Amino acid sequence: RRREMAKSTQLTQLIDNEVFRAYATYTAIVLLKMMLMSLITAYFRITRKAFANPEDTATFGKGESAKKYLRTDPDVERVRRGHLNDLENIVPFVGIGLLYALSSPQLSMALLHFRVFTGARILHTFAYLIPLPQPGRGLSWAVGYLVTFSMAYNVLKAVWLL
Amino acid sequence: RRREMAKSTQLTQLIDNEVFRAYATYTAIVLLKMMLMSLITAYFRITRKAFANPEDTATFGKGESAKKYLRTDPDVERVRRGHLNDLENIVPFVGIGLLYALSSPQLSMALLHFRVFTGARILHTFAYLIPLPQPGRGLSWAVGYLVTFSMAYNVLKAVWLL
Amino acid sequence: RRREMAKSTQLTQLIDNEVFRAYATYTAIVLLKMMLMSLITAYFRITRKAFANPEDTATFGKGESAKKYLRTDPDVERVRRGHLNDLENIVPFVGIGLLYALSSPQLSMALLHFRVFTGARILHTFAYLIPLPQPGRGLSWAVGYLVTFSMAYNVLKAVWLL
Repeated sequence: RRREMAKSTQLTQLIDNEVFRAYATYTAIVLLKMMLMSLITAYFRITRKAFANPEDTATFGKGESAKKYLRTDPDVERVRRGHLNDLENIVPFVGIGLLYALSSPQLSMALLHFRVFTGARILHTFAYLIPLPQPGRGLSWAVGYLVTFSMAYNVLKAVWLL
Repeated sequence: RRREMAKSTQLTQLIDNEVFRAYATYTAIVLLKMMLMSLITAYFRITRKAFANPEDTATFGKGESAKKYLRTDPDVERVRRGHLNDLENIVPFVGIGLLYALSSPQLSMALLHFRVFTGARILHTFAYLIPLPQPGRGLSWAVGYLVTFSMAYNVLKAVWLL
Repeated sequence: RRREMAKSTQLTQLIDNEVFRAYATYTAIVLLKMMLMSLITAYFRITRKAFANPEDTATFGKGESAKKYLRTDPDVERVRRGHLNDLENIVPFVGIGLLYALSSPQLSMALLHFRVFTGARILHTFAYLIPLPQPGRGLSWAVGYLVTFSMAYNVLKAVWLL
Protein backbone atom coordinates (compact mmCIF):
# COMPACT_ATOMS: atom_id res chain seq x y z
CA ARG A 1 0.00 0.00 0.00
CA ARG A 2 2.66 2.50 1.03
CA ARG A 3 4.87 1.29 -1.80
CA GLU A 4 1.93 1.82 -4.16
CA MET A 5 1.48 5.40 -2.94
CA ALA A 6 5.18 6.11 -3.29
CA LYS A 7 4.95 4.98 -6.88
CA SER A 8 2.00 7.14 -7.83
CA THR A 9 3.59 10.13 -6.12
CA GLN A 10 6.67 9.51 -8.23
CA LEU A 11 4.74 9.46 -11.46
CA THR A 12 2.64 12.44 -10.48
CA GLN A 13 5.81 14.45 -9.92
CA LEU A 14 6.85 14.13 -13.56
CA ILE A 15 3.51 15.36 -14.92
CA ASP A 16 3.50 17.89 -12.04
CA ASN A 17 6.64 19.55 -13.38
CA GLU A 18 5.72 22.70 -15.29
CA VAL A 19 8.13 22.14 -18.19
CA PHE A 20 6.99 18.54 -18.60
CA ARG A 21 3.34 19.69 -18.50
CA ALA A 22 4.08 22.17 -21.29
CA TYR A 23 5.78 19.38 -23.28
CA ALA A 24 2.74 17.11 -22.75
CA THR A 25 0.32 19.82 -23.91
CA TYR A 26 2.12 20.77 -27.12
CA THR A 27 3.10 17.19 -28.00
CA ALA A 28 -0.54 16.12 -27.69
CA ILE A 29 -1.60 19.09 -29.87
CA VAL A 30 0.91 18.47 -32.70
CA LEU A 31 0.23 14.71 -32.69
CA LEU A 32 -3.53 15.34 -32.86
CA LYS A 33 -2.88 17.77 -35.72
CA MET A 34 -0.89 15.05 -37.50
CA MET A 35 -3.71 12.55 -36.92
CA LEU A 36 -6.13 15.03 -38.52
CA MET A 37 -4.27 14.50 -41.83
CA SER A 38 -5.70 10.93 -41.98
CA LEU A 39 -9.24 12.31 -41.84
CA ILE A 40 -8.49 14.92 -44.52
CA THR A 41 -6.98 12.20 -46.75
CA ALA A 42 -10.10 10.05 -46.26
CA TYR A 43 -12.32 13.06 -47.06
CA PHE A 44 -10.51 13.74 -50.37
CA ARG A 45 -10.35 10.03 -51.29
CA ILE A 46 -14.14 9.76 -50.88
CA THR A 47 -15.13 13.08 -52.51
CA ARG A 48 -12.61 12.67 -55.40
CA LYS A 49 -13.29 8.91 -55.65
CA ALA A 50 -9.56 8.12 -55.78
CA PHE A 51 -8.50 4.99 -53.91
CA ALA A 52 -5.37 2.87 -53.55
CA ASN A 53 -6.96 -0.51 -52.74
CA PRO A 54 -9.43 -2.50 -54.92
CA GLU A 55 -11.46 -3.49 -51.84
CA ASP A 56 -12.05 0.23 -51.07
CA THR A 57 -13.89 0.78 -54.36
CA ALA A 58 -16.38 -2.11 -53.93
CA THR A 59 -19.21 0.21 -52.84
CA PHE A 60 -19.01 1.99 -56.23
CA GLY A 61 -19.83 -1.09 -58.28
CA LYS A 62 -18.25 -4.40 -59.24
CA GLY A 63 -15.42 -5.43 -61.54
CA GLU A 64 -14.41 -3.05 -64.33
CA SER A 65 -16.79 -0.23 -63.33
CA ALA A 66 -15.05 0.11 -59.94
CA LYS A 67 -11.53 -0.14 -61.39
CA LYS A 68 -11.57 3.44 -62.63
CA TYR A 69 -11.56 4.67 -58.99
CA LEU A 70 -8.16 3.02 -58.42
CA ARG A 71 -6.25 6.16 -59.28
CA THR A 72 -4.20 8.99 -57.83
CA ASP A 73 -5.72 12.44 -57.42
CA PRO A 74 -3.71 15.67 -57.05
CA ASP A 75 -5.63 16.76 -53.91
CA VAL A 76 -5.23 13.37 -52.23
CA GLU A 77 -1.51 13.29 -53.07
CA ARG A 78 -1.09 16.83 -51.68
CA VAL A 79 -2.59 15.88 -48.30
CA ARG A 80 -0.46 12.72 -48.25
CA ARG A 81 2.72 14.75 -48.85
CA GLY A 82 1.69 17.05 -45.98
CA HIS A 83 1.11 14.01 -43.75
CA LEU A 84 4.53 12.52 -44.58
CA ASN A 85 6.17 15.90 -43.96
CA ASP A 86 4.48 15.93 -40.53
CA LEU A 87 5.90 12.49 -39.76
CA GLU A 88 9.39 13.59 -40.83
CA ASN A 89 9.28 16.69 -38.62
CA ILE A 90 6.98 15.86 -35.69
CA VAL A 91 8.79 12.59 -34.84
CA PRO A 92 12.08 14.47 -34.15
CA PHE A 93 10.15 17.11 -32.16
CA VAL A 94 8.49 14.50 -29.93
CA GLY A 95 11.73 12.56 -29.33
CA ILE A 96 14.13 15.49 -28.89
CA GLY A 97 11.46 17.55 -27.07
CA LEU A 98 11.12 14.84 -24.41
CA LEU A 99 14.88 14.84 -23.77
CA TYR A 100 14.85 18.65 -23.77
CA ALA A 101 11.97 18.76 -21.25
CA LEU A 102 13.96 16.40 -18.99
CA SER A 103 17.17 18.48 -19.25
CA SER A 104 15.83 21.16 -16.83
CA PRO A 105 15.44 24.09 -19.24
CA GLN A 106 13.96 27.39 -18.06
CA LEU A 107 10.15 27.26 -18.31
CA SER A 108 10.01 30.43 -20.44
CA MET A 109 12.55 29.07 -22.93
CA ALA A 110 10.79 25.69 -23.10
CA LEU A 111 7.41 27.34 -23.72
CA LEU A 112 8.98 29.48 -26.45
CA HIS A 113 10.37 26.38 -28.22
CA PHE A 114 7.16 24.33 -27.91
CA ARG A 115 4.82 27.16 -28.94
CA VAL A 116 6.85 28.34 -31.93
CA PHE A 117 7.14 24.75 -33.20
CA THR A 118 3.41 24.10 -32.78
CA GLY A 119 2.48 27.38 -34.49
CA ALA A 120 4.92 26.72 -37.34
CA ARG A 121 3.52 23.24 -38.03
CA ILE A 122 -0.09 24.49 -38.01
CA LEU A 123 0.91 27.24 -40.47
CA HIS A 124 2.76 24.62 -42.56
CA THR A 125 -0.43 22.57 -42.88
CA PHE A 126 -2.46 25.60 -44.02
CA ALA A 127 0.34 26.63 -46.42
CA TYR A 128 0.36 23.10 -47.90
CA LEU A 129 -3.39 22.60 -48.21
CA ILE A 130 -4.60 26.04 -49.41
CA PRO A 131 -1.84 26.17 -51.00
CA LEU A 132 -0.05 29.42 -50.22
CA PRO A 133 2.60 30.69 -52.68
CA GLN A 134 6.18 29.95 -51.68
CA PRO A 135 8.14 30.78 -49.52
CA GLY A 136 5.13 30.45 -47.17
CA ARG A 137 5.37 26.68 -46.76
CA GLY A 138 9.19 26.69 -46.91
CA LEU A 139 9.51 29.26 -44.12
CA SER A 140 7.03 27.54 -41.79
CA TRP A 141 8.92 24.27 -42.36
CA ALA A 142 12.27 25.97 -41.63
CA VAL A 143 11.04 27.54 -38.38
CA GLY A 144 9.91 24.16 -37.01
CA TYR A 145 13.19 22.59 -38.16
CA LEU A 146 15.30 25.23 -36.42
CA VAL A 147 13.32 24.94 -33.16
CA THR A 148 13.95 21.18 -33.08
CA PHE A 149 17.62 21.78 -33.89
CA SER A 150 17.86 24.30 -31.04
CA MET A 151 16.34 21.78 -28.59
CA ALA A 152 18.80 19.09 -29.76
CA TYR A 153 21.69 21.51 -29.20
CA ASN A 154 20.44 22.22 -25.66
CA VAL A 155 20.04 18.49 -24.92
CA LEU A 156 23.57 17.65 -26.09
CA LYS A 157 25.01 20.64 -24.17
CA ALA A 158 23.15 19.59 -20.99
CA VAL A 159 24.23 15.94 -21.33
CA TRP A 160 27.87 16.69 -22.08
CA LEU A 161 28.27 19.36 -19.37
CA LEU A 162 27.00 17.06 -16.61
CA ARG B 1 28.36 5.30 -4.66
CA ARG B 2 25.30 6.19 -2.63
CA ARG B 3 24.33 8.77 -5.25
CA GLU B 4 24.68 6.03 -7.88
CA MET B 5 22.32 3.78 -5.93
CA ALA B 6 19.81 6.56 -5.46
CA LYS B 7 19.80 7.03 -9.21
CA SER B 8 19.15 3.42 -10.11
CA THR B 9 16.39 3.22 -7.52
CA GLN B 10 14.81 6.23 -9.18
CA LEU B 11 14.82 4.67 -12.61
CA THR B 12 13.63 1.32 -11.33
CA GLN B 13 10.59 3.03 -9.81
CA LEU B 14 9.32 4.17 -13.19
CA ILE B 15 9.46 0.71 -14.74
CA ASP B 16 8.14 -0.60 -11.39
CA ASN B 17 4.91 1.33 -11.82
CA GLU B 18 2.15 -0.97 -13.07
CA VAL B 19 0.70 1.49 -15.60
CA PHE B 20 4.13 2.26 -17.01
CA ARG B 21 4.91 -1.46 -17.23
CA ALA B 22 1.71 -1.99 -19.22
CA TYR B 23 2.70 0.91 -21.50
CA ALA B 24 6.16 -0.63 -21.99
CA THR B 25 4.70 -4.05 -22.85
CA TYR B 26 2.16 -2.86 -25.43
CA THR B 27 4.47 -0.23 -26.95
CA ALA B 28 7.16 -2.89 -27.47
CA ILE B 29 4.56 -5.21 -29.05
CA VAL B 30 3.12 -2.66 -31.52
CA LEU B 31 6.59 -1.40 -32.48
CA LEU B 32 7.77 -4.99 -33.08
CA LYS B 33 4.62 -5.55 -35.17
CA MET B 34 5.48 -2.43 -37.19
CA MET B 35 9.07 -3.68 -37.65
CA LEU B 36 7.67 -6.98 -39.00
CA MET B 37 6.32 -5.01 -42.01
CA SER B 38 9.94 -4.49 -43.19
CA LEU B 39 10.49 -8.26 -43.30
CA ILE B 40 7.20 -8.83 -45.15
CA THR B 41 8.16 -6.13 -47.68
CA ALA B 42 11.55 -7.80 -48.19
CA TYR B 43 9.84 -11.19 -48.61
CA PHE B 44 7.51 -9.88 -51.35
CA ARG B 45 10.29 -7.90 -53.07
CA ILE B 46 12.41 -11.06 -53.33
CA THR B 47 9.64 -13.53 -54.30
CA ARG B 48 7.99 -11.06 -56.75
CA LYS B 49 11.38 -9.81 -57.98
CA ALA B 50 10.27 -6.17 -57.70
CA PHE B 51 12.92 -3.74 -56.46
CA ALA B 52 13.33 0.01 -56.11
CA ASN B 53 17.14 0.29 -56.37
CA PRO B 54 19.35 -0.83 -59.31
CA GLU B 55 21.99 -2.18 -56.89
CA ASP B 56 19.37 -4.56 -55.38
CA THR B 57 18.87 -6.35 -58.71
CA ALA B 58 22.57 -7.09 -59.35
CA THR B 59 22.25 -10.73 -58.22
CA PHE B 60 19.71 -11.35 -61.03
CA GLY B 61 22.12 -10.48 -63.83
CA LYS B 62 23.89 -7.44 -65.26
CA GLY B 63 22.79 -4.42 -67.26
CA GLU B 64 19.55 -4.64 -69.23
CA SER B 65 18.59 -8.12 -68.02
CA ALA B 66 18.41 -6.88 -64.41
CA LYS B 67 16.56 -3.69 -65.30
CA LYS B 68 13.24 -5.46 -65.66
CA TYR B 69 13.22 -6.14 -61.90
CA LEU B 70 13.16 -2.38 -61.20
CA ARG B 71 9.39 -2.24 -60.99
CA THR B 72 6.47 -1.89 -58.64
CA ASP B 73 4.40 -4.92 -57.67
CA PRO B 74 0.83 -4.77 -56.25
CA ASP B 75 1.69 -7.04 -53.29
CA VAL B 76 4.82 -5.05 -52.40
CA GLU B 77 2.91 -1.77 -52.64
CA ARG B 78 0.14 -3.16 -50.44
CA VAL B 79 2.58 -4.08 -47.64
CA ARG B 80 4.24 -0.67 -47.98
CA ARG B 81 0.89 1.10 -47.60
CA GLY B 82 0.24 -0.98 -44.48
CA HIS B 83 3.68 -0.05 -43.13
CA LEU B 84 3.10 3.68 -43.73
CA ASN B 85 -0.33 3.43 -42.10
CA ASP B 86 1.40 1.88 -39.08
CA LEU B 87 3.83 4.79 -38.90
CA GLU B 88 0.98 7.30 -39.13
CA ASN B 89 -0.96 5.63 -36.31
CA ILE B 90 1.62 3.98 -34.05
CA VAL B 91 3.77 7.14 -33.70
CA PRO B 92 0.83 9.06 -32.09
CA PHE B 93 0.08 6.03 -29.87
CA VAL B 94 3.68 5.82 -28.60
CA GLY B 95 3.94 9.59 -27.97
CA ILE B 96 0.49 10.23 -26.49
CA GLY B 97 0.52 6.85 -24.69
CA LEU B 98 3.70 7.82 -22.81
CA LEU B 99 2.11 11.08 -21.61
CA TYR B 100 -1.07 9.18 -20.72
CA ALA B 101 0.89 6.57 -18.74
CA LEU B 102 2.57 9.40 -16.79
CA SER B 103 -0.75 11.17 -16.07
CA SER B 104 -1.70 8.63 -13.34
CA PRO B 105 -4.64 6.89 -15.04
CA GLN B 106 -6.38 3.95 -13.37
CA LEU B 107 -4.58 0.71 -14.23
CA SER B 108 -7.76 -0.93 -15.57
CA MET B 109 -8.50 2.03 -17.88
CA ALA B 110 -4.89 2.15 -19.09
CA LEU B 111 -4.87 -1.59 -19.83
CA LEU B 112 -8.16 -1.21 -21.72
CA HIS B 113 -6.70 1.57 -23.91
CA PHE B 114 -3.39 -0.23 -24.59
CA ARG B 115 -4.96 -3.63 -25.29
CA VAL B 116 -7.74 -2.38 -27.57
CA PHE B 117 -5.21 -0.32 -29.58
CA THR B 118 -2.80 -3.26 -29.90
CA GLY B 119 -5.58 -5.64 -30.93
CA ALA B 120 -6.98 -3.14 -33.44
CA ARG B 121 -3.58 -2.62 -35.12
CA ILE B 122 -2.95 -6.38 -35.39
CA LEU B 123 -6.41 -6.81 -36.96
CA HIS B 124 -5.66 -3.86 -39.27
CA THR B 125 -2.54 -5.62 -40.55
CA PHE B 126 -4.45 -8.85 -41.26
CA ALA B 127 -7.29 -6.86 -42.89
CA TYR B 128 -4.75 -5.08 -45.12
CA LEU B 129 -2.65 -8.09 -46.13
CA ILE B 130 -5.31 -10.80 -46.68
CA PRO B 131 -7.15 -8.43 -47.75
CA LEU B 132 -10.52 -8.49 -45.98
CA PRO B 133 -13.47 -6.73 -47.63
CA GLN B 134 -14.27 -3.29 -46.27
CA PRO B 135 -15.27 -2.06 -43.72
CA GLY B 136 -12.92 -4.56 -41.98
CA ARG B 137 -9.78 -2.49 -42.43
CA GLY B 138 -11.61 0.82 -41.98
CA LEU B 139 -13.14 -0.22 -38.66
CA SER B 140 -9.88 -1.60 -37.20
CA TRP B 141 -8.20 1.66 -38.21
CA ALA B 142 -10.98 3.74 -36.59
CA VAL B 143 -10.82 1.82 -33.30
CA GLY B 144 -7.07 2.47 -32.95
CA TYR B 145 -7.61 6.11 -33.90
CA LEU B 146 -10.34 6.62 -31.28
CA VAL B 147 -8.25 4.96 -28.54
CA THR B 148 -5.37 7.36 -29.24
CA PHE B 149 -7.81 10.27 -29.29
CA SER B 150 -9.25 9.19 -25.93
CA MET B 151 -5.74 9.03 -24.41
CA ALA B 152 -4.95 12.53 -25.77
CA TYR B 153 -8.18 13.84 -24.22
CA ASN B 154 -7.21 12.32 -20.85
CA VAL B 155 -3.69 13.80 -21.07
CA LEU B 156 -4.96 17.31 -21.83
CA LYS B 157 -7.60 17.03 -19.08
CA ALA B 158 -4.98 15.86 -16.54
CA VAL B 159 -2.51 18.60 -17.55
CA TRP B 160 -5.05 21.44 -17.54
CA LEU B 161 -6.73 20.39 -14.25
CA LEU B 162 -3.46 20.33 -12.30
CA ARG C 1 9.57 27.17 -3.50
CA ARG C 2 10.74 24.02 -1.75
CA ARG C 3 8.24 21.97 -3.76
CA GLU C 4 9.60 23.61 -6.91
CA MET C 5 13.15 22.59 -5.95
CA ALA C 6 12.05 19.05 -5.21
CA LYS C 7 10.57 18.88 -8.69
CA SER C 8 13.65 20.07 -10.49
CA THR C 9 15.81 17.69 -8.46
CA GLN C 10 13.51 14.91 -9.59
CA LEU C 11 13.85 15.77 -13.25
CA THR C 12 17.58 16.32 -12.96
CA GLN C 13 17.95 12.79 -11.59
CA LEU C 14 16.61 11.23 -14.78
CA ILE C 15 19.02 13.11 -17.05
CA ASP C 16 21.66 12.53 -14.34
CA ASN C 17 21.44 8.77 -14.81
CA GLU C 18 24.31 7.54 -16.97
CA VAL C 19 22.22 5.13 -19.07
CA PHE C 20 19.56 7.77 -19.69
CA ARG C 21 22.27 10.27 -20.63
CA ALA C 22 23.65 7.79 -23.18
CA TYR C 23 20.13 7.29 -24.55
CA ALA C 24 19.66 11.08 -24.83
CA THR C 25 22.97 11.50 -26.68
CA TYR C 26 22.45 8.77 -29.28
CA THR C 27 18.74 9.52 -29.76
CA ALA C 28 19.56 13.17 -30.45
CA ILE C 29 22.29 12.09 -32.92
CA VAL C 30 20.14 9.64 -34.93
CA LEU C 31 17.19 12.07 -35.01
CA LEU C 32 19.47 14.88 -36.24
CA LYS C 33 20.84 12.47 -38.87
CA MET C 34 17.26 11.72 -39.95
CA MET C 35 16.48 15.46 -40.12
CA LEU C 36 19.53 15.89 -42.40
CA MET C 37 17.68 13.83 -45.04
CA SER C 38 15.22 16.75 -45.49
CA LEU C 39 18.10 19.08 -46.38
CA ILE C 40 19.61 16.53 -48.80
CA THR C 41 16.19 16.10 -50.46
CA ALA C 42 15.85 19.88 -50.81
CA TYR C 43 19.38 20.07 -52.26
CA PHE C 44 18.61 17.47 -54.95
CA ARG C 45 15.16 18.94 -55.71
CA ILE C 46 16.75 22.34 -56.36
CA THR C 47 19.85 21.16 -58.29
CA ARG C 48 17.87 18.57 -60.36
CA LYS C 49 14.89 20.94 -60.68
CA ALA C 50 12.43 18.18 -59.76
CA PHE C 51 9.51 19.26 -57.60
CA ALA C 52 6.25 17.77 -56.33
CA ASN C 53 4.18 20.96 -55.92
CA PRO C 54 3.27 23.49 -58.66
CA GLU C 55 3.84 26.41 -56.23
CA ASP C 56 7.48 25.24 -55.75
CA THR C 57 8.30 25.78 -59.43
CA ALA C 58 7.02 29.37 -59.63
CA THR C 59 10.53 30.86 -59.43
CA PHE C 60 11.47 29.01 -62.66
CA GLY C 61 8.86 30.73 -64.78
CA LYS C 62 5.09 30.83 -65.20
CA GLY C 63 2.50 28.44 -66.59
CA GLU C 64 3.68 25.79 -69.06
CA SER C 65 7.37 26.63 -68.83
CA ALA C 66 7.41 25.77 -65.09
CA LYS C 67 5.31 22.61 -65.52
CA LYS C 68 8.26 20.59 -66.78
CA TYR C 69 9.88 20.81 -63.33
CA LEU C 70 6.94 18.91 -61.79
CA ARG C 71 8.63 15.55 -62.16
CA THR C 72 10.35 12.78 -60.27
CA ASP C 73 14.14 12.45 -60.37
CA PRO C 74 16.08 9.24 -59.52
CA ASP C 75 18.41 11.05 -57.08
CA VAL C 76 15.52 12.77 -55.28
CA GLU C 77 13.59 9.49 -55.03
CA ARG C 78 16.68 7.71 -53.67
CA VAL C 79 17.08 10.24 -50.82
CA ARG C 80 13.35 10.01 -50.11
CA ARG C 81 13.54 6.21 -49.85
CA GLY C 82 16.46 6.61 -47.43
CA HIS C 83 14.43 9.10 -45.39
CA LEU C 84 11.42 6.78 -45.19
CA ASN C 85 13.68 3.88 -44.22
CA ASP C 86 15.03 6.08 -41.40
CA LEU C 87 11.49 6.76 -40.17
CA GLU C 88 10.65 3.04 -40.26
CA ASN C 89 13.74 2.12 -38.24
CA ILE C 90 14.56 5.13 -36.06
CA VAL C 91 11.00 5.43 -34.66
CA PRO C 92 11.20 1.90 -33.13
CA PHE C 93 14.72 2.69 -31.82
CA VAL C 94 13.56 5.89 -30.08
CA GLY C 95 10.45 4.25 -28.55
CA ILE C 96 11.96 0.90 -27.54
CA GLY C 97 15.27 2.55 -26.57
CA LEU C 98 13.48 4.79 -24.04
CA LEU C 99 11.84 1.78 -22.39
CA TYR C 100 15.17 -0.07 -22.47
CA ALA C 101 16.99 2.87 -20.86
CA LEU C 102 14.37 2.88 -18.08
CA SER C 103 14.65 -0.89 -17.49
CA SER C 104 17.97 -0.53 -15.61
CA PRO C 105 20.34 -2.19 -18.11
CA GLN C 106 24.08 -2.31 -17.46
CA LEU C 107 25.72 0.89 -18.75
CA SER C 108 28.21 -1.05 -20.91
CA MET C 109 25.43 -3.09 -22.57
CA ALA C 110 23.30 0.01 -23.13
CA LEU C 111 26.22 1.90 -24.70
CA LEU C 112 26.92 -1.10 -26.95
CA HIS C 113 23.29 -1.15 -28.18
CA PHE C 114 23.05 2.61 -28.73
CA ARG C 115 26.46 2.95 -30.43
CA VAL C 116 26.08 -0.03 -32.76
CA PHE C 117 22.61 1.20 -33.83
CA THR C 118 23.85 4.75 -34.44
CA GLY C 119 26.86 3.52 -36.42
CA ALA C 120 24.71 1.13 -38.46
CA ARG C 121 22.23 3.87 -39.41
CA ILE C 122 25.01 6.28 -40.44
CA LEU C 123 26.55 3.51 -42.59
CA HIS C 124 23.08 2.76 -44.02
CA THR C 125 22.74 6.38 -45.17
CA PHE C 126 26.15 6.32 -46.90
CA ALA C 127 25.36 2.91 -48.45
CA TYR C 128 22.05 4.29 -49.78
CA LEU C 129 23.32 7.61 -51.11
CA ILE C 130 26.69 6.66 -52.68
CA PRO C 131 25.25 3.91 -53.44
CA LEU C 132 27.38 0.99 -52.28
CA PRO C 133 26.84 -2.43 -53.92
CA GLN C 134 24.69 -4.83 -51.93
CA PRO C 135 24.83 -6.38 -49.37
CA GLY C 136 26.31 -3.14 -47.92
CA ARG C 137 22.99 -1.42 -47.37
CA GLY C 138 21.19 -4.65 -46.45
CA LEU C 139 23.71 -5.54 -43.75
CA SER C 140 23.74 -2.07 -42.16
CA TRP C 141 19.92 -2.19 -42.11
CA ALA C 142 19.95 -5.66 -40.51
CA VAL C 143 22.40 -4.64 -37.77
CA GLY C 144 20.20 -1.71 -36.70
CA TYR C 145 17.13 -3.96 -36.84
CA LEU C 146 18.70 -6.63 -34.65
CA VAL C 147 19.90 -4.07 -32.08
CA THR C 148 16.33 -2.72 -31.73
CA PHE C 149 15.01 -6.28 -31.51
CA SER C 150 17.53 -7.07 -28.75
CA MET C 151 16.44 -3.98 -26.77
CA ALA C 152 12.77 -4.99 -27.15
CA TYR C 153 13.61 -8.48 -25.86
CA ASN C 154 15.36 -6.96 -22.83
CA VAL C 155 12.42 -4.61 -22.14
CA LEU C 156 9.85 -7.44 -22.24
CA LYS C 157 12.08 -9.66 -20.08
CA ALA C 158 12.53 -6.86 -17.52
CA VAL C 159 8.80 -6.05 -17.46
CA TRP C 160 7.62 -9.66 -17.18
CA LEU C 161 10.19 -10.67 -14.54
CA LEU C 162 9.26 -7.81 -12.18
